Amino acid sequence: MSDALSNTKYLKAIRSPADIKALSMGELEALCGEIREVLVDTVSETGGHLSSNLGIVEVTVAMHREFASPTDQFVWDVGHQCYVHKLLTGRAERFSTLRQEGGVSGFPLPSESEHDAFVVGHSSTSISAANGMAKAKSMLGEDGYVVAVIGDGALTGGLAYEGLSNAGRSKDRLIVVLNDNGMSISRNVGFVARHLAALRARPHYVRFKNRVSNAVAAIPLVGTPLRNKLLHWKTELKKMLYSRSSFFEEMGFNYIGPLDGHDLGDLLKGFQAAKKLDRPVLMHVATVKGKGYPFAEKDPGVYHGVSGFDVETGRVPPSSECFSSVFGGELCALAKEDVRICAISAAMKNGTGLLRFSQQFPKRFFDVGIAEEHAVTFAAGLAHDGALPVFAVYSTFLQRSYDQILNDAAIGKEHIVLAVDRAGIVGDDGETHQGIFDVAFLNTVPGVAVYSPSCFEELRINLKQALYDEEGVAAVRYPRGGELPGLEGWRPDYRPYTLWEEPGADTLLVTYGRIYATVRQAARRLQEEGRPVSVLKLTRIKPLEAECIRAALPYKRVVFLEEGIRSGGVCERFGARLMAASYRGLYQTAAIDTFVPVCKPERGLAANGLDMEGILSLVQRRMGDGGQ
Amino acid sequence: MSDALSNTKYLKAIRSPADIKALSMGELEALCGEIREVLVDTVSETGGHLSSNLGIVEVTVAMHREFASPTDQFVWDVGHQCYVHKLLTGRAERFSTLRQEGGVSGFPLPSESEHDAFVVGHSSTSISAANGMAKAKSMLGEDGYVVAVIGDGALTGGLAYEGLSNAGRSKDRLIVVLNDNGMSISRNVGFVARHLAALRARPHYVRFKNRVSNAVAAIPLVGTPLRNKLLHWKTELKKMLYSRSSFFEEMGFNYIGPLDGHDLGDLLKGFQAAKKLDRPVLMHVATVKGKGYPFAEKDPGVYHGVSGFDVETGRVPPSSECFSSVFGGELCALAKEDVRICAISAAMKNGTGLLRFSQQFPKRFFDVGIAEEHAVTFAAGLAHDGALPVFAVYSTFLQRSYDQILNDAAIGKEHIVLAVDRAGIVGDDGETHQGIFDVAFLNTVPGVAVYSPSCFEELRINLKQALYDEEGVAAVRYPRGGELPGLEGWRPDYRPYTLWEEPGADTLLVTYGRIYATVRQAARRLQEEGRPVSVLKLTRIKPLEAECIRAALPYKRVVFLEEGIRSGGVCERFGARLMAASYRGLYQTAAIDTFVPVCKPERGLAANGLDMEGILSLVQRRMGDGGQ
Repeated sequence: MSDALSNTKYLKAIRSPADIKALSMGELEALCGEIREVLVDTVSETGGHLSSNLGIVEVTVAMHREFASPTDQFVWDVGHQCYVHKLLTGRAERFSTLRQEGGVSGFPLPSESEHDAFVVGHSSTSISAANGMAKAKSMLGEDGYVVAVIGDGALTGGLAYEGLSNAGRSKDRLIVVLNDNGMSISRNVGFVARHLAALRARPHYVRFKNRVSNAVAAIPLVGTPLRNKLLHWKTELKKMLYSRSSFFEEMGFNYIGPLDGHDLGDLLKGFQAAKKLDRPVLMHVATVKGKGYPFAEKDPGVYHGVSGFDVETGRVPPSSECFSSVFGGELCALAKEDVRICAISAAMKNGTGLLRFSQQFPKRFFDVGIAEEHAVTFAAGLAHDGALPVFAVYSTFLQRSYDQILNDAAIGKEHIVLAVDRAGIVGDDGETHQGIFDVAFLNTVPGVAVYSPSCFEELRINLKQALYDEEGVAAVRYPRGGELPGLEGWRPDYRPYTLWEEPGADTLLVTYGRIYATVRQAARRLQEEGRPVSVLKLTRIKPLEAECIRAALPYKRVVFLEEGIRSGGVCERFGARLMAASYRGLYQTAAIDTFVPVCKPERGLAANGLDMEGILSLVQRRMGDGGQ
Repeated sequence: MSDALSNTKYLKAIRSPADIKALSMGELEALCGEIREVLVDTVSETGGHLSSNLGIVEVTVAMHREFASPTDQFVWDVGHQCYVHKLLTGRAERFSTLRQEGGVSGFPLPSESEHDAFVVGHSSTSISAANGMAKAKSMLGEDGYVVAVIGDGALTGGLAYEGLSNAGRSKDRLIVVLNDNGMSISRNVGFVARHLAALRARPHYVRFKNRVSNAVAAIPLVGTPLRNKLLHWKTELKKMLYSRSSFFEEMGFNYIGPLDGHDLGDLLKGFQAAKKLDRPVLMHVATVKGKGYPFAEKDPGVYHGVSGFDVETGRVPPSSECFSSVFGGELCALAKEDVRICAISAAMKNGTGLLRFSQQFPKRFFDVGIAEEHAVTFAAGLAHDGALPVFAVYSTFLQRSYDQILNDAAIGKEHIVLAVDRAGIVGDDGETHQGIFDVAFLNTVPGVAVYSPSCFEELRINLKQALYDEEGVAAVRYPRGGELPGLEGWRPDYRPYTLWEEPGADTLLVTYGRIYATVRQAARRLQEEGRPVSVLKLTRIKPLEAECIRAALPYKRVVFLEEGIRSGGVCERFGARLMAASYRGLYQTAAIDTFVPVCKPERGLAANGLDMEGILSLVQRRMGDGGQ
C-alpha cells in the first residue's frame, strides 16, 4: 500500500463499488478529497493523465454510488479519466504501479477488471459502443444501464456525432455523461465549444440546485403503476431540468443539465432522474480540469499527460530534445522560406511539436479538433489548390484516416505530407496506442512514399524530401522520444538506402527507423567477434529501390529487423521482392506479430527480438547451424 | 452524338459553361428539360445514377450560370450527381459512353476535365476538401469560390460534421449547397432528417419567393464603396433570408434557405446572395429525387443506381441471384434460429441484400446512415453484451472503419462479423469503388479471420463459420454479382483450404475467391495440353494454415493468383511463409499493383492478368523456360 493510500480513511476501505453505497454524503465528500491526494501523489511519481482525473472525481463517485457496476456498464471515452474508477473498483492497493509493465494500466482494460467494460483508447468511440451494449441488453432482455462518459473535446470527432445520432434513435437505457471542462487537450474550438458555452451560460444552471430537489422528490419509483402521474412528472421535470439544447434534443436525447460536476448532491439527483427515464439521456456536467490541485487548475494542459512532477512546487521536468521537437523546429525553418507550407494538428499541437509553429505562423496553422479524417481530406483540398500541407499526427491516430489517405489524397495524387509521430513501440499506454501499424497500412496504398529516419538530422533531411522531392502522399515517420544510442560517427544523407558492405560477410542485416542504431551496434559487436556482417539501412521504405533488393542477392543470408507489425510490413515486401528475384538464400525476420501491451519501449523492443540481445541471438543462432 | 442529344436545341450548343451565361431564363428552363431527357435516355442504356441527377438539374444549371468554373471550383459529394455538370462542361457529345471503359466516368474525374475539381466517390468528404481548397485560395491570394454540393444522406457521416465544424470557423469563400431530398439512398433517419424536416416546415420557405426579389434588388454590387448600405443590407437580408438553424449557424455558417431546388430564379438569387457574403454559407435547397421522370419520382430508390431500364414503362430488369442476395437469404435463415443475430447496414440495405432481413427482423436490423465508423464500434458494443452482429458493407466503404476494427473490436476480441460485399474488382465506378484493399488492410490486424468464398454455397458455409467457429473479428468477403463460370462438379466444404494434387505436376496454382473458378478452368486446360498442374484453393485466407504452406513446398514452382492489391495481400504473406520454410522453388504472383479505373469486371481482371488467358500465359511462359 502506498503512503498516500495508507493515509486515507475511506478510500482504503473500499474493496468494491458496493462499499461506496454505505457512505454518507459527508463521507463521500471526504472520499473525494482522499482520491485527489492519491491521484496527485501517484501521478507525480508514475506520470500519467492528471488533470482529467482530478476533474472527474465527483462524477465517478456519484456514478458508483448510483449505479451497480458491473451489471451497469461504464464506457470511458478515450479512457484517460479512468483512474478514479480504478481506485474505486478494487485497484487502489496496486494503484502505485500505474502505467508500469505488469501494473495497473492507464486505460480501462477488460482483462484487468470486470468493471472495465470496454476497450477504449482512441477518442469519440464511447457513445457508439455504449449504444451497441445498451441495444444488446434490450434485445436479449438483460438488466442494467450503460453509461458513456465523454469529454467536450471528444465531441469534436465525427464518430461521436454518428454515435449521438444513432443512439438518440434508440429507446434503450443509455446515459451519456458529457464531461464539459470547456477544453479538450488544448482549448476547444468550433461548434462544440460554442454550443456548450451557450448551454452553460443559461440562468437555469444556477437555479438547478434549488429546483431539482423538489422535482426529484416528486419522482415516483420506477415500476409504479401510476402511469399518469409518471407522465405528468416527466412533463414537469422536463420543464425544470432540461434546458433546451436543440442539438442534443434533435439528436433524440433527453437533455439534463448543465450540472455542477463537482457538486455530489446535484450529480446524484441528476443520475437518479436520468435512470427513471428509461431512454437515452444526455447529462451535461461542467467540471474544472485539474480540480483541487492548484497548479493543474491553473495550467491543465501541462498536467494533461505528464511524465512526473514535484507535488509541492508543481514543477514538471523540462522535456529534452526529441523527434517531435526536431520536426517542429525544422518545419518552422522551412515555413519561413516557403509561404505555401502550412501545418495541421488534430488537437495535438503540443504532443506533435507544433506549438512554436502555431505561434510563428498562426494563419498557416490549423487545429481541427479530434478529427483525423477531416485533417487528411482538408489537407488534400489545401494541396489541390497549391498549398503544402503537413499533417502531424500520432501513428496510432492516423489509423483513422486510412480511407481518406487512400480515396481523397492518393487517387488524386494530392501532395500532402504526413508527419507520423509516435511511430513504433510507444510503450506506456499499451495496445491502443502503439504506432506499429502505420507502415503496414500505408504499404497497401499505391503511390505513397514513406520515409523512416533513424536520427534527428535524418528527420530534417527526410522532411525536406517529403515536401520537395515527392509527389502525392508522402509520409515521414519517427518514434516517440529521442535517438537510440549507437549512431556515433554516422552522417545521414539523402540516399533512400545505404549499404555498408563488410568484406567477407555472408550475412546482411536489413532494417529501418530508430532500431538502425541498435543494428549498427550489433554489427559492430559481431565484427569484433570475427563474424563480419553487412548492413543495409533503408530510409525510404516505400517504394523500395530495385537496387537495394539486388544488393541483397549475393548474401547467403538476409536478416530483416522491423519495428512494426509483420503482416503487411516491409519485411514481407522485401521478402516478396527477393523471391521475385529468385533469391535462394536464407531469409529471416524479426518483427511484431500482435498487439503490444503496456511496456517501456526498450522492453517492448526486447520482447519482440528487436534489442541488441535479440538481434545477436537471431544472427548467432543460425550461424551456428552453418548458415542454415 | 446520341439521338437524345441531337434532338436538343440548347444543350448541344453548350461547349463550355460560359455558353450558359448567354441564355435567358426561359432558355435556361428549356435547357433543364433537355438535360432531363438526355439523362433518362442515356442512363436507361448505360445504367448509372438517375434519381440524384434528375434532382439536381436546376441547381447545377444555376451554379454554372452564377459561377465561373474552373476558377470557381465545384466539389460534388460522393459524386454520383455529377452527370448534369458533365453535360454542361464539354462532355455532352461523349455522354452516351457513360460508365463504359474509356468513356465518360460516372464520377467526377480531374483527369477527365478541368471542371472536375476533386476526386470524390466516398460520402461526406466534400466540405472538408472544399474547406482546404478555399483556405488555400485565401492563403495564397488566389481568386474564386469553392462550392461543395452535399446531400442530406451524406450529412449523416461524421466526416461531414467534422468538415462543417472546421469550415464554419474559416472566413473563406466557401458555399455549401445542401441538396435536401428528404432521403439519402434509402429513407434518412435520425438527427439530420429531423433537423432538416424542421427547417423545411417553416413558413419562411413559402414566403421566400415573394420577399427575396426585393431583398436581392437591394443588394449593392460587390466592391461598391457604400459600406454602410451593405451592412444594412446584410442585416435586413439576414432577417429575411436566413431562417434560424441553430445547428448550421452554431457551426459558423450563414444559413440561406430552404429554397425550392427546382426554381431557377430562387436558386440564382440565393447564389448571388451567398457570393456577396465572402464567408462560409450553407445554402439549403429542397429537391425532389427523380424529378421529371415520373417512375423515378415515385420510387427514387429503384433508380438511385440502376443497370438500365425501359424508358416508356420504367421497367427495371429483375436482378438475378447474386452473392448479396445469397448472403441476405442465408442470414435470414440463420436469424430465425438464433435470436442473437442482428444486422447492421450503413445506408446500403438494398445493395447489401438486407432488405428482407430488415422486413423480417425489424428490431434486429440497424441502418446507421452513412456511418461506417459507428457501424463497427456499435457492432463491437453489441457483441460485447452478447449479441451476434453482422455488418454488411461494401469493401471500399469498410476502408473507413480500419481504426474501429483494430481498436474497438480486435483488441478486445469482440466477436463481430463483417460481411464484405463488392470485394475485388467492382468495375463501373472506377478507382474509388474497387474492393481491392480489404484483404490487405485486414491482413494487418492481429486476430482477424477472413473467409473468401468462391461460390454461393461456400458463402453460406463461410457465413456460418464466421458466426459460430470464430472468435473476435471475422470477415466473409465476396464479389459483386454472381459466380464465375468454371465451377461445374465442385462441391464446397468446411475446410479452410483444399488441395487438388495432379500426378506428375511440378507447378502449384494457389488462389482464393471468385477467380478460383477461372484457375480451375485454366488447370483443366493445362491438363488437356499434357501439362498437369496442382491447385490449392484457399478459403480462409487469414490466418493461413501451416499445412497449406507445407503442401506447397514440394513443388518446383508456385504461382499465386490474387484479385486484390499485391502489397500486403495474401500472395506476399504466402510468399513470406514459403521463405520462412526455406522454399527454394520459383514463386510467381499475379495481383493488382495500383488503382483500377472504370472497367467491366472481366476486363479489369484481364488487365491484371487474372483471366484465363493471363493465367495460362503466366504459367506457360515460364514453363517454356524449363521451370525457371
